[in-house]
Order: sequence, then structure tokens, then C-alpha cells
Amino acid sequence: MGHHHEKHIAVILAAGKGTRFKSKKPKVIHKILGKPMIHYISLAVRWSNPEKVIYVVGHEKQQVIKAINCLNCTYVEQEEQLGTGHAVAVTKPYWENFDGIVMIVNGDLPLVEGETLKNAVKYMEALMRFEGAPTEGGENYRNEKVAGVVLTTKVPNPLGYGRVIKDRNHRIIKIVEEKDATYEEQKIDEINTGIYLFYAPYLKEVIDKLENKNAQKEYYITDVIQLLNDMGKEVYALLVPDYTQFIGVNDRWDLAKAENVLRMKYLQFWSYAGTTFHNPETVYIEFDVELSPDVEIYQGVSLKGKTTIGEDTIIEENCLIKNSKIGRNVKILKGSIIEDSVIHDNAVIGPYARIRNNSVIKEKAQIGNFVEVKNSTIGQNTAAKHLAYLGDAEIGKDVNIGAGTITCNYDGFKKHKTVIKDKAFIGSNTMLVAPVIIGEEAITGSGSVITKDIPDKALGIERAQTKIIENYAEKRKKRAKNG
Amino acid sequence: MGHHHEKHIAVILAAGKGTRFKSKKPKVIHKILGKPMIHYISLAVRWSNPEKVIYVVGHEKQQVIKAINCLNCTYVEQEEQLGTGHAVAVTKPYWENFDGIVMIVNGDLPLVEGETLKNAVKYMEALMRFEGAPTEGGENYRNEKVAGVVLTTKVPNPLGYGRVIKDRNHRIIKIVEEKDATYEEQKIDEINTGIYLFYAPYLKEVIDKLENKNAQKEYYITDVIQLLNDMGKEVYALLVPDYTQFIGVNDRWDLAKAENVLRMKYLQFWSYAGTTFHNPETVYIEFDVELSPDVEIYQGVSLKGKTTIGEDTIIEENCLIKNSKIGRNVKILKGSIIEDSVIHDNAVIGPYARIRNNSVIKEKAQIGNFVEVKNSTIGQNTAAKHLAYLGDAEIGKDVNIGAGTITCNYDGFKKHKTVIKDKAFIGSNTMLVAPVIIGEEAITGSGSVITKDIPDKALGIERAQTKIIENYAEKRKKRAKNG
Amino acid sequence: MGHHHEKHIAVILAAGKGTRFKSKKPKVIHKILGKPMIHYISLAVRWSNPEKVIYVVGHEKQQVIKAINCLNCTYVEQEEQLGTGHAVAVTKPYWENFDGIVMIVNGDLPLVEGETLKNAVKYMEALMRFEGAPTEGGENYRNEKVAGVVLTTKVPNPLGYGRVIKDRNHRIIKIVEEKDATYEEQKIDEINTGIYLFYAPYLKEVIDKLENKNAQKEYYITDVIQLLNDMGKEVYALLVPDYTQFIGVNDRWDLAKAENVLRMKYLQFWSYAGTTFHNPETVYIEFDVELSPDVEIYQGVSLKGKTTIGEDTIIEENCLIKNSKIGRNVKILKGSIIEDSVIHDNAVIGPYARIRNNSVIKEKAQIGNFVEVKNSTIGQNTAAKHLAYLGDAEIGKDVNIGAGTITCNYDGFKKHKTVIKDKAFIGSNTMLVAPVIIGEEAITGSGSVITKDIPDKALGIERAQTKIIENYAEKRKKRAKNG
Repeated sequence: MGHHHEKHIAVILAAGKGTRFKSKKPKVIHKILGKPMIHYISLAVRWSNPEKVIYVVGHEKQQVIKAINCLNCTYVEQEEQLGTGHAVAVTKPYWENFDGIVMIVNGDLPLVEGETLKNAVKYMEALMRFEGAPTEGGENYRNEKVAGVVLTTKVPNPLGYGRVIKDRNHRIIKIVEEKDATYEEQKIDEINTGIYLFYAPYLKEVIDKLENKNAQKEYYITDVIQLLNDMGKEVYALLVPDYTQFIGVNDRWDLAKAENVLRMKYLQFWSYAGTTFHNPETVYIEFDVELSPDVEIYQGVSLKGKTTIGEDTIIEENCLIKNSKIGRNVKILKGSIIEDSVIHDNAVIGPYARIRNNSVIKEKAQIGNFVEVKNSTIGQNTAAKHLAYLGDAEIGKDVNIGAGTITCNYDGFKKHKTVIKDKAFIGSNTMLVAPVIIGEEAITGSGSVITKDIPDKALGIERAQTKIIENYAEKRKKRAKNG
Repeated sequence: MGHHHEKHIAVILAAGKGTRFKSKKPKVIHKILGKPMIHYISLAVRWSNPEKVIYVVGHEKQQVIKAINCLNCTYVEQEEQLGTGHAVAVTKPYWENFDGIVMIVNGDLPLVEGETLKNAVKYMEALMRFEGAPTEGGENYRNEKVAGVVLTTKVPNPLGYGRVIKDRNHRIIKIVEEKDATYEEQKIDEINTGIYLFYAPYLKEVIDKLENKNAQKEYYITDVIQLLNDMGKEVYALLVPDYTQFIGVNDRWDLAKAENVLRMKYLQFWSYAGTTFHNPETVYIEFDVELSPDVEIYQGVSLKGKTTIGEDTIIEENCLIKNSKIGRNVKILKGSIIEDSVIHDNAVIGPYARIRNNSVIKEKAQIGNFVEVKNSTIGQNTAAKHLAYLGDAEIGKDVNIGAGTITCNYDGFKKHKTVIKDKAFIGSNTMLVAPVIIGEEAITGSGSVITKDIPDKALGIERAQTKIIENYAEKRKKRAKNG
Repeated sequence: MGHHHEKHIAVILAAGKGTRFKSKKPKVIHKILGKPMIHYISLAVRWSNPEKVIYVVGHEKQQVIKAINCLNCTYVEQEEQLGTGHAVAVTKPYWENFDGIVMIVNGDLPLVEGETLKNAVKYMEALMRFEGAPTEGGENYRNEKVAGVVLTTKVPNPLGYGRVIKDRNHRIIKIVEEKDATYEEQKIDEINTGIYLFYAPYLKEVIDKLENKNAQKEYYITDVIQLLNDMGKEVYALLVPDYTQFIGVNDRWDLAKAENVLRMKYLQFWSYAGTTFHNPETVYIEFDVELSPDVEIYQGVSLKGKTTIGEDTIIEENCLIKNSKIGRNVKILKGSIIEDSVIHDNAVIGPYARIRNNSVIKEKAQIGNFVEVKNSTIGQNTAAKHLAYLGDAEIGKDVNIGAGTITCNYDGFKKHKTVIKDKAFIGSNTMLVAPVIIGEEAITGSGSVITKDIPDKALGIERAQTKIIENYAEKRKKRAKNG
């Protein structure tokens, strides 16, 4: 019952610098949708369920290891970058006694699907099984000739890629680099994807025999195929129809294109799950974002970091939301920015509101245009609809914050807290000089600077007498003329 | 003289739920460019000039009827969704005595052109005319064999579509669903678009004979063809070359793609009419918007609802304009929002201005950055250039509104009006506690809270004495250190 | 040693109106990436290194000459637009005694590469060289039969283009316009690009023999080929594989498409040079902008005019920067606008800041949300983080500008200056009535209107007594009920 499953170990090559990125940072940590590029191939590899994942690191290895952020993975250093064959060779101690498959993948292939790698392992397993009938124990005998599988694909323009020369049985005779290819070989459109599976015991026998007698003076992993063939072993091509998975990221333009491919793929996923997008080509949603059914997202929206959006919520044009939790039926109007904050159900935010630093906006609260909320809690039903700065404030429910209100939270030395209790009415342009407490149902007069606490239900007002000077317009004109 | 024109009745199928939308709303009312999806096929149908338009409704029929919003259309309820054949059958009472064509279209085909349907009717008419010479009366005899026309198209990948099996004369033998197709039939790339025309008297004879003996247990309208053929009647294929018109909208990703197709089509229309677009792929313009020649629109702009834009007007990046009328030679600078308002010629708005709720901005007025105007009239030549809130205000011409000015229109109970007369000069940060009237050429002192009316030409000022406390910096530092 | 190089003169046709633009402006001055459309073909022409550049102008010639903005070019007026042949004829005085090549290009071809024109000249040179061995002097004899070269290309759909009829040696027999083409000729997909090179002495002989006996009553330059052939001379086709270079801009939709092509080309250039773009399809960067390595640009950004961005600078979503110089490691947060200003290293701008009119933001300064800076200098380390207007101000280093601060720079007659010295602390909502000087380490009280200078280290405060009226909430409610 059930076939024998070969175990496999994955080796991910992540040692390169990526010269064409022209960057201070190593290439595999450049980000795609908020995650280092290597995150995506790592995910695909994990989907194939390997025994062990080994990363070959080198250039700026500490940064790379930090970006990979995998505790139970193995990191092997390749001190000098002497080619893919050399990179695999340095991992030998981790699989030389392993009776299974070594899967080798390049770290710059963020578009490879997990299913593709899973299928590659299954295909290798199938080849390794003896072609006769299964034994009674339910296991097949091994076909001892099978040494490896190379994932190949056909591209519209094979120029520059390693061409795969195979026999009629999909057995690879050799992989020829562009510059070594004959005119006939150049016409071949089946190319090497840079993903290889080898039976570990055979790989062990040949990996140290690689030579660097070529123009680049590098050890190529593809030369292993010839060495295995010389041993009488066989390496097969597995042709994957969708070549777009294997677009390597070699410069920042490739990076932008790969980000676009993944961006559209995830948008489509969320669309099928019930989100309406307007002009999705202009919507940027990072990997860790979670959406809900009947969410509606307009053009130019960016959702970043660990953000979740609740059901029936509308996000208008050009909003930016990062590391935040948005409730149900929230309206986030055009151009609003929400960072590291929580917005409860039925709130209305924006347009052009900015909410940040662990702020909490409670149910049905309204934060309007040109209002900044920083490290504050805004109670249920409370409204701050125009031109205000609310920082380090704890604001109760049913409060009205007049236009122009400012919490003067910083005295030049440290930040102080403002407390506004339920049902308070803060007049327009009130300066709340923190620390200060505004009582329940208390009122502040428009234009007042409030430097001390206002008791519940009291009015706090700071205002001079109004003077009216008649005919001032004429005097003013004269003064302007003379001065 | 002139051929006989067949009359036709249109039946639009709009009863489905659209399960793959994962939505609380029925699929045909999901919006494309601000209109329910069904609006577009309805327009195309109307272009073909039918005698009568019948909508078959079912799932959430009240919402659907409201969205269709057609007073002289007929709505027929299909209580259970038992297939397209059944949907047509429920409309029988409306055409069973009709001597003309019944045109049946699916409600989820927003990309079909009106011209395509008009041509389909013409083609059916041509077929129905007797092939001999016209009679003296100028009419042709009918070809009594012609029973129907099915619109077909050729797609790059026919997988999943019903294949059209025809004879050499474009007569349809049958339409085969994917799952029933033989290997040979699967290779056919001519597919059924879901648009049918039948001669009503013949359709009447067969519509009740449909059976639901299939996997889905549904009555298929395509089975009518076999029944007509059995009667010795003929149904013809009309192959439409542009298959993109027939992309059905079955989920929200299809919806986004269809919206993009229509968006670009209308942008191209306005471009030919004289509008310059920068990066039109990022410009979102709804169906009811009207543009003028020499309008210039930058990237990320959204124009919604019933909006008109006058000649020579420039709309910078990321502006959002909804249900508004914009005059000639207006400059709307980056990120401005205008809703339900009117902007007169030569005004300058923004950047980041917000104008809403029936506001009127008169000729040459300037509304600048971080200024909100709500339910207000701003007179000719008046400027409010920075950080202000003008709500429920009536402002004359040649007024200068200082930065930070706020109309304190809300007292916690109701909204009050502010009147500012011509040539007034409102000092920065003036609080205008409404109701209040500022006279002609009157002046307010910066930072004043104005609670009573200011006469013409008078200065209104509310200000305390300025105190200067020398060496305060040192005291303050000490206090900060100690406290 | 070295071949003889033929000299050449370029003639650029820029006299047309561009009726399909439906514009008050002539078509070649419509802008692409901030430059008149004709700028791009002019650049390509200059790359081929001509002796002289002649523009044929006509419709609104002054506007066109101003847009071309080339001092050492020649402008020849074509008073009536009688066709391309006529346009070339009017330039005859400038090349009739020239022993070299006349290169004729249309002004509406902004996508042609300079390299393409350079190669065209080289190809013509090669053809003109005698086919035998070079003489001892190192020069080849001329092949006196060679009279011209026409750049041709193959397009997917040649409908509407002039088809090129050639013999086996790429010699052009004739160019046939769509309407004159036979059925067989219509199948030819090699078309005329509108770029021609002729040997001047031969062109001189035939240019005046052109006739306008055609439907359009125009003189066609293509008729020159027949005339040259009649003289026993030869005109060759040079087939350029990339047809996209030759897309002519005939209406505003073409203009938008051409702008997109150039936009993506330049973005790719900057990407290869080290800039990271997110969703480059939504990024708009004009021709004169210069970027640096490790710049990161998010979606919806617009960079315009003469703008330079320093290394490691991040520009978040929807920023607009025009004619400005941005230093290194600057953070420009979402939605900020910078015009005609300088931002020094390590500054943090935005989100939603606006900086304009020759402002200078020094190292590490912070300009935050809803802050406008106009014609001002902001010193090192100074912060103005929320809701402020700083106009005509000179602000020192280490200053803190409180939220709501406004420089009242305009008295209704003219603008005045505000000076704030180092380490001053401006309390929230301070009105600085200019002209005014705030001394070093001076402090202003929150909500104060400062009308006179504040000495160093002094506190300036304008504030009334705070009154607290107990139980005001009840009175207010009653009043509201009654009033």
C-alpha cells in the first residue's frame, strides 16, 4: 500500500552579490511586496516538504541570514563565490550520508511555484522506482540508473540561456552555455531553469570532480551531468510549460517586474475571495496583508506590513495602511495614512487623515481631513473632523473636537498626556497644554489655551475682550502706503 | 423602396446570483465605472432599437430592478434559477403572439458593443428575406426556414466554452458543451457567445419542449437549436471577429478586467475629442463624466459621478472630483478633492484642498493647501490659501482669508452661518464664531475669536497684552530638569 | 586608413497643424515627459551628428521655434502645407550646393533612436562607396548610382501605411499608398517609416519636378524615388527590425502611448543604474530628472522638471517633486509636494508636506504633515511636524515649531519676513506677525500672537486669564433648546 517516498534535502543558493543591482545590499534581500526576495523561493521550497533546508550564504552573509529569518535552517558559508558547483560542494557535509534527493535551487527565482517543486520531487521519485511490478511490501525497487532531474522550460527567446540537449527519452546529454553552443544548438528553445534534483549518493561521488576550466573560471553544477553520464547514470529533463515561473531576478528592473507578477497574483487571489478592486494594476498589497469579503479598494491604494481589513470596508484612492487592523464597514476616505494602529467597526477616516503610533479609533468615531492622531485613543462616536493634532491623548466617547484643536503634548523636553472625558465639547482652535484633563461634558471656548484641568460640565475659556475699531480700513491703507 | 424591417424584442437574463462573486449583492449590480454592470449591456441592447426590453430577474430582484432603473422595461420573475432555457420560457407571455425576433442576451456581458447587436438583427433580417427578387410592394418574402441566429466568436483558448458545430453554410448543427465534446469537437475554436436571436413564432413552438436531462439538471436555451432543426428550421452562426466583446463577468477579477477595458475605451474616446492624458492607465473616469477640448489630466486622477470639466482646465495628479461642474481654465492642483460643488472659470484649487457639499467657488478664487470648504460660497478673486476650514459660509469677492481661519459653525447642537462681505481681510487664525457677519472691507486681527458682527471697514480684534519674560529659557530648563 | 565619411544635413518636418489633436497648439509642441514632442526626434537627429539641422516650420511657427529652442539650427518657413515633397523643396537653398546626404525625418516620430539614424547614415555611406578595392589614399570611390535610402520596417498590421515595393537587392521600385495598392501589394508588410536619406546633388535635380496630381493635391517626397529611378539612380530600403520606433503621433492617444513608451524606457535606464521602483507603471519621471544609486521610489510618484535625487533617498507614494534638488538619505513621505526647492541630506519631509518657492530645508530638518513651507529657509535639525504655514521665514537650527504655527507674512498689501533664531521654541498655534524676529533660545507661549521681536532666551506670551465656569454644560443645553 502506498509508494515509498524519497526524502529530500533542499539547497538554496544565496551567496551572490548581484553586481547588476548596483547596490550596497546583497541581491536576495532586496524586497518584493515587503519581504526579502529570497522569502518567495523559500516558501516554494518549504511547500515541497524537505527534510532540511540549507542556505549557501556568502556576500554580506549576516544580512542575508537575518533576512531569511529561519531558525531551523542550516546556513553554510561559501567564502569565495566560485560558481554554482562550488556552492553545492560546500554543502556536502550535510548530505554526503543522506540516502535521498538533493534539490538545488537558485535564490533569485521568486516566481517559482511550490507545486512545481513538489511535482519535481514526485517525478524524481517515480523515475527512481523500478519499472517492474511493486513488491509485496508495497515498495518499488529502485532504478539504480536514475541520478537526477533538471527542471527545464521553453522560452520565446532562448538567447543567453543554457540549452538542454536531450535524447528521445528526455535524458539529458548535456547543457550547453550560449557561448559554447553550435549554430544548431542555439536553435534549441528548451533551457535550464537552474533547478536540479540529484540522488545524494551519486552526487557525492562526482561533486568534487568538477573543474573550472572555462572562461569564467567557475565550477558549474551543470557539469555534474556529464560526470554522472560517464558513470552510466541518467539525468532527466522535466519540462515545465509555464516559463514565466523561472524568470531570474538579476537587476532592479527584473525585481520590479517580479514584484508586479506576484502583486497581480495575490490581488487575483483576494479578488476571488471577495474583494472588489478598481484598477488593480495601481494597487500595491504586501505579502502579509489579509483582506475580507466585500472589501472595496480603489486605485492607488497601498496596504503594507501586517495589515488586516474587515468585511464591507471601503478604502478610497491613494490610502496607505501599514501594520494596522481595520474593522468592518469602515470608510477610509481618499489619501488617508494609517500606521501601527487599530480602527474599529463603522469608523470613518479621512480624507487626508493620518493615524499612527498605536492609536486606536473606536466604533463610529470620525477622523476628518488634515487631522493627525498619534499614540492616542479616540472613543466611540467621537468626531475630530478638521485640521487637528491629537497626540498622546486619551479621548472618551461622544466627544466633539473642534477644528484646529491641538494637543500641546511636547514642552521641548518631554511628551505629556491629554485626557478628554466623555461628551466633552472642545471648541475650535483650543490648545490643550498637556498634561491636562478635560472633564465629562466639559466645554472649552474657541481659541482658548487650556493650561489647567477643566472639571466635569464646566466651561474653560481663555479670551480677551473684543475691541472694534471703526474705520480701521482707511488707517491701514494709509499706513501701508507710508511704510 | 426600402426593405421590410423585422421588429424585435430583447430578453436580458439578470436572474443569477453570481456565486463566484462571493458577495451579498447580486452580480449584475456590481459596478463598473460607477454604473451597475447591467447598465452596459442594456445600453448595447437599446442601441439595436428593440420594441420592448424584458429583464428576467430573480435573485434579490428588487435590488436588480432598482439598479436597472428603466421605467418602460418589463421585469419578469424567474423564481427558481433552472437554466437559460427556463429563463426564456418565463418570458413567453410577452412574445408568444409577436411576429418578429426575440433577442436573448446574458446580463453579464458588459463589453458587447451596441453595433454588434444591431448588426445581428440586420443579419437575421437578411436571412429571413426570401432569396428571390423583391416584390413590387418593396418587401421581400420571408424565407420560412430561417429560425434563428447565434452570435459566435473564435477565442485563442476555447477550453470551457460551448463549441459551435456548423455545416458549410454556417448553419448550426449543434452547440456542444465542453464536457460532452468529443476530442475532435474540442479542437473547434468557434464558441457560443450566449447571444441568440430567434423568430418568435418558431421559438414559441419549441420553448416548452426543453428538457433538463443533463448533469446540471438545467434547461438550456441551446437545446432549442436541435428542436428547431428537428422541425426542419435553420439556425445560423454569425461569427463576430472581436472576441474580447464577449468576455463574461463571472467573478470580481473579471469585473476588474472588464472595468479596465471600458475605462481605456472611454479614455481613448475623450483623448480623440481633445483631452491630454498622462499615463491614462492610472486615470479613472466614470461613465457619466464629460470632458472638453484641451483639458489636461495627470496620473492617478479619478473623476466620478456626474462631473463636467471645462476647456483648458488642468487637473493634476491624484485629484478626485465627484458630481461637480468645473469651469474653463481652472487649475486643480495635486490631490484636491471636489464633491457636489461648482468651480467657476480661472479658479485655482489646491494642492490638497477639499471642497464639498454644494460649495461654489467663483471666478479666479484661490483655495489653497489643507483648506476645507463645506457648503459655502467663495466670491470672485477671494483667496483662502492655507490651512483653513470654511463651513456654511457666504464669502464675498476680493476677500483675503488668512491661514488658520476657522468658521466655528457648530455649537454642539446645530450649524450656523458665517457671512464675510467683499474686500474683508481676515487675519490669520481668526475664529469666526457663527452666526456672525464680517462687514465690507472689515479687518480681523490675527488670532482673534470673533463672536459678534464687525461693521464695514472696522477692525475686530480680540487680543491680550503681550508679555515678555526675560531669561525664561533658563527657568524652563530648570523646571524641566526638576519636574 | 579610415573610410571617407559622408557629411549630412538633417531636415526635420515640423510645419503641420496636427488636426486630429483638436488643439489650439501645433502638434509637435505637445509635451512628452515635460519636453515638446519634437525634442525627442531632435535628440535622435543630433546623435547622428549632422552638419546642419533645418526645421521646416509653418503652423504657429513662433511657438514651434520657441519650443525647439535651438540657436544654431535653421528654420525655414513652409507657408502653405502642400505635402512632404513641398516641405523638402522649401529647404533646397540650404543644401543645393551641398555634396553630401540630406536626411529627412518627420517631427512626429518621438520614439526613433539616435542609433537608428546614425546607422542609416553609415548604411548610405557604405552603399555610396565603390564596390571595388579602396584606393591608396584610403578613400573609396563613389558608387554613382546610389541616390538614397529609405528606412522601412515590418508591422503586424500594415493597413493604412505606404507599402515598399523592392527588388531582390533591396532597391526600392516604388512606395505605394494604401489607396493605390493592388490586392497583392496590400499584403506587403514592409512599410515606409517616413525617414529618407538622399544624395543632395541628385535630390536637387528632381525635387522641383514633383507633381501634386493625386487625391490629396499634395507633393509627396516619396515620388522622388520614381524620378530618381528614371534617372537610372538607385534608392535602397534599410529595414529596421524594431517597428515600435516608428509609431507616428497623430492624435493625443498616440501621444499618451508614446509618452508611456519613453517613460518606461527611461525608468528602465534608471533601474539599471541602481534605482528601485515599486510598480514603475505608475511612476512618472520627466526627461531632465537625474537619480542616484539606491534611491527607492514607490508607486504613483511624479518627478518633474530639472530635479535631482541623491543616493539612498526614499520617495514614498504619490509624492510630486519639481525643479528641486534632493540630497542623500532624505525620506520624503507619502503625498509630499516639493517645488523649486532644495532639501539637504538626512531631512525628513512629509507625509503631506508642501515645500515651494525657493525654500531650503537643511540637514536633518523635519517638515511634517499638513505643513506648508514657502520661500523659507529651515535650519539644521529644526522640526515643524504638524499643521503649520511657514512663509518668507528664515529659521535657524534646532528650532521647534509647534503645531498650528503660522507666519502672518501678508498684511493685505505686501509680504514681510519672519526670522527665528537657533534653538527657539515656538509654542503651538503661535501667530508670528511679520516682520518679526524671535531670538535665540527664545520661547513663545502657545496660542500667542507675536507682534514684536522677542529677545534671546526670553518668553513672549500673549494670553488672557483662563476662566472656569462651573455647570456651563446645563446652561448651554438650555440656551440651545430655547434659541
